[in-house]
Amino acid sequence: MTEMKSWVHIPDNSDFTIHNLPYGAFTYSNGNKGLGVAIGDQIIDLHKLNQSGLLNALDLPADIFTHEFLNEFIALGKDTWHALRSRLQELLVHDNNELKDRANDILVSQSGVSMRMPVRVGDYTDFYSSIEHATNVGMMFRDPENALLPNWKHLPVGYHGRASSIYISGTPIYRPQGQQMKAGAAAPEYGSTQRLDIELEMAFIIGQNTDQGKQITTAEADDYIFGMVLFNDWSARDIQKWEYVPLGPFLGKNFASSISPWIVTMSALKPFRVPGPEQDPPVLSYLEYEGNKNYDIHLEIGLSPDGESETVIARSNFKYMYWNMAQQLAHHTVNGCNVRVGDMMASGTISGKDKNSFGSMLELSWAGKNPIILENGQERKFLLDGDTVALRGFAENNGIRVGFGQVTGKIYPPKNKR
Amino acid sequence: MTEMKSWVHIPDNSDFTIHNLPYGAFTYSNGNKGLGVAIGDQIIDLHKLNQSGLLNALDLPADIFTHEFLNEFIALGKDTWHALRSRLQELLVHDNNELKDRANDILVSQSGVSMRMPVRVGDYTDFYSSIEHATNVGMMFRDPENALLPNWKHLPVGYHGRASSIYISGTPIYRPQGQQMKAGAAAPEYGSTQRLDIELEMAFIIGQNTDQGKQITTAEADDYIFGMVLFNDWSARDIQKWEYVPLGPFLGKNFASSISPWIVTMSALKPFRVPGPEQDPPVLSYLEYEGNKNYDIHLEIGLSPDGESETVIARSNFKYMYWNMAQQLAHHTVNGCNVRVGDMMASGTISGKDKNSFGSMLELSWAGKNPIILENGQERKFLLDGDTVALRGFAENNGIRVGFGQVTGKIYPPKNKR
Repeated sequence: MTEMKSWVHIPDNSDFTIHNLPYGAFTYSNGNKGLGVAIGDQIIDLHKLNQSGLLNALDLPADIFTHEFLNEFIALGKDTWHALRSRLQELLVHDNNELKDRANDILVSQSGVSMRMPVRVGDYTDFYSSIEHATNVGMMFRDPENALLPNWKHLPVGYHGRASSIYISGTPIYRPQGQQMKAGAAAPEYGSTQRLDIELEMAFIIGQNTDQGKQITTAEADDYIFGMVLFNDWSARDIQKWEYVPLGPFLGKNFASSISPWIVTMSALKPFRVPGPEQDPPVLSYLEYEGNKNYDIHLEIGLSPDGESETVIARSNFKYMYWNMAQQLAHHTVNGCNVRVGDMMASGTISGKDKNSFGSMLELSWAGKNPIILENGQERKFLLDGDTVALRGFAENNGIRVGFGQVTGKIYPPKNKR
Repeated sequence: MTEMKSWVHIPDNSDFTIHNLPYGAFTYSNGNKGLGVAIGDQIIDLHKLNQSGLLNALDLPADIFTHEFLNEFIALGKDTWHALRSRLQELLVHDNNELKDRANDILVSQSGVSMRMPVRVGDYTDFYSSIEHATNVGMMFRDPENALLPNWKHLPVGYHGRASSIYISGTPIYRPQGQQMKAGAAAPEYGSTQRLDIELEMAFIIGQNTDQGKQITTAEADDYIFGMVLFNDWSARDIQKWEYVPLGPFLGKNFASSISPWIVTMSALKPFRVPGPEQDPPVLSYLEYEGNKNYDIHLEIGLSPDGESETVIARSNFKYMYWNMAQQLAHHTVNGCNVRVGDMMASGTISGKDKNSFGSMLELSWAGKNPIILENGQERKFLLDGDTVALRGFAENNGIRVGFGQVTGKIYPPKNKR
C-alpha cells in the first residue's frame, strides 16, 4: 500500500486520512441532520455530495443520505460500499478538482457540528473473547487454578446486552444505583455503585440482513460486517456481582455503553490484518477459518480527573483477541439466529498479557488491591464522579494511519436522589 | 363490571369480546398492510375507521394507523389509548349504529388476513420470576437443598434476549444446531439439539419512552405498560447447558421466540387483578408496591404430534408469579436504564405448584426422567420434528371473558444440512 495525498489538509497524526474515510451521523448547529464521511478535520456531507451530481455514476437513491441513520445506506450492500469508497478516494486525491472546486458547499468543519448515533442498533451482543481478560476475571472471582471455565476455549462466549442505552461519545454517564450485597452482610442494600468501571472494547456493525435459519460461515463473515467502532462497556461491578448468577450481567451493564462516532470500514482496516493466536484445543469445524482475521489496532485508555490533565492508564491492542470476528459471527448464527443491518457486536474487554495492558480498572487495580496511580498523584480503584474516560484506537503501517478517534464519557452523580 | 353486548356476533367462548379489544397488525390477501382491533371473528381496520370520520373527536393524526407497526400509535400516550378504547366500545355496543351501518367497509374477517408482528421490538428482556420454575430448575441442575440462588428473593432476576428473532405465531421453528457437551464426553460436539423445549411465558409491552437515568417507580409502572401477549421462549436445553456459564443463555434461546398476535391492553385486564404471593424476606423499598399487581389469567400448553390431535400437557396461571410487572419494571430502571415504546419484557416460565402446572417440558418430564404421555399413547421428553405447540390464555370473571387467543409453532428439521 502506498500513501495517498489529499487536497484536504490532513493534520499530523490525524486518524481520518484518505485511507480511512469513516462514516458518521452529525447535527448542524441549526439542528439539521446529516450523514457524512470524515476527512482530516472536515466532514463530507453525503447528501449534498449526492445532490451535486458527483456520485451520478453510482446511481444511488436520491434520498439515501436523508435518513436519520446509516442503516438504509449500509443495506444497499457491499458493492455500493466499495464503489462509494473508491469514488471518494478519487474525489479527494491531491490532483482531482471535481470536489475541491465545490468544497465550500459540501464540506463542513467537524468543530461546527455535533455527532450523534450513526446507526439504529437492532440488537447488541457482547462477547468475552480476550483470553487474558477472561483469565484475570476468573482468577479474581473464581478459582486461580481453573480461571477459564470449561467452555471458554471451545466457543466464543457471549450474551445479549441492551441496545437502547448505547450512547454516542460525550454523553454524560450518571452513576447507577441498585442492589449490592456487601461482604459479610446478611441482606443486600440499595445505593449508588461504589465500583464503577470501564471496559475497553471494540464493536463491529452488521452490514447485511439474514433470514431465520441462515448460518454465516467464517468464510462468508467478511461480507456481513460493515465496519467497527470503539466501545466502552461501562460496568458497575458491585451490582453485577450480586445479580449475575445464573442468567448473566443485567443492571450492572445496561445503564450505558458508549461508542466512538465514526464507523471505520473493514475496507479501510484490511491492510492491518494479522494472524491471531494459536487456538488449542482445536475448534469445531464450523469455527475453523483461513487467512488473517485479527487486526493490529493500538488501543489506549485515558483517565482525566475533573479539570485535570489525562493519565494514560493502559495500552492494549485488538490483535490479542483469542476469538476473531468471523468466528464470533459464525458462532452467533450457527443456531439460525438472524442478524440485521445495524446490529452491534462487541469484543468483550481487550486485555493484553502485561499489567499495563489490561482493559478494565477491575483488572488494572486487581479488584481494588493495587490502586492505579494518576499523574497528579491521586489513586483510583474505580471511577469517581467528575472523572472523564477516553478510549482511543488507531492502526498504522508504513506511515499510513487509519484511526477511530475517541469515545469519551464523564461521570456524574446519580440523577435520582432517593 | 357488567357484561356489554355488541352488534358484532361474538362466538361462544371467544377471547375477543367487547371487553377486550386487543390491538394487532395484519396483511390483507392482496399484500396491503393494516393495523386493527379484534372483535369476535372480525378485525376493525383502524386506518379505515380513522378515515371514516367516526374517530374525529379523538383528533388523531391522519396517518397514525398507516405505519408498519403500532409503535407510533402507542407513543401517543395512555390518554389516547383510553379515549380510543372508550370510543370503540361505544361504537361496538349493541344499540349503536354509527359503525354498524358501515361495517362492510371497515371490518374484515380474521380468516381473510394473515397476522404479523404488531410492534417493532427495540429491546427484549426475559425475567425469571416464577418461584416454582426457579426452584424446579435449581433442584434439577444445582442443589435440591438450596434450589434458589441467594439473590432470587431479593430481586427479579432477568437478562437480555434477542429482539430480532421474536416471531409472530405460526412462524416455523427450525431445530437449532450448535455445540453440546455430552455427559462423560471429553470434548463438545456439533449437532442438532436433542432437547428442544418450550417455555410458557407472558410478555408486557412498554408504552412510553424514558430518558437515560429515569427510575420508574412501582406506583408509576402502570403508566408505562401498554399491554400483554403470550410468549413462547423456545429453548435448546443441551446448547444452553454448555454455553450459559458465566454470562447467561445465548444460542440456547436466540434462534426463536414466538408471540400471540393480539396485544391485550392493561385496561382490558384491569378487572382481573388479584393479590400476589407474600414476599418473604421483605423486599427493598424500591420494590415495595401497593394494591393488586398480579393477574388471574388461565394458561395452557397444547402439544399436537404431526397430523394428530392435541394433548393439553399443562395448565398454569399468571397469578402465580412471585415478582409482578411493576416490580420488574422498577428493578429494570433502578439503575437509570432507559426503556422505549415497543420493548418487550417477558415473565420467565410460568409454573404452578402441581406437576401438571409446570411451564416447560424440562420440568414436566423432570429433565427427561418422567416422559409426558400424550393422548395417542406417544411419549415426549422434549419436542420432535413435526410437533406443534400452542399456548393459550384467558381471564374470565362473572361471565366476562378477555383472552389472548393463542401462539403456535411447528417444529421443522434444521434448515442447514451440515
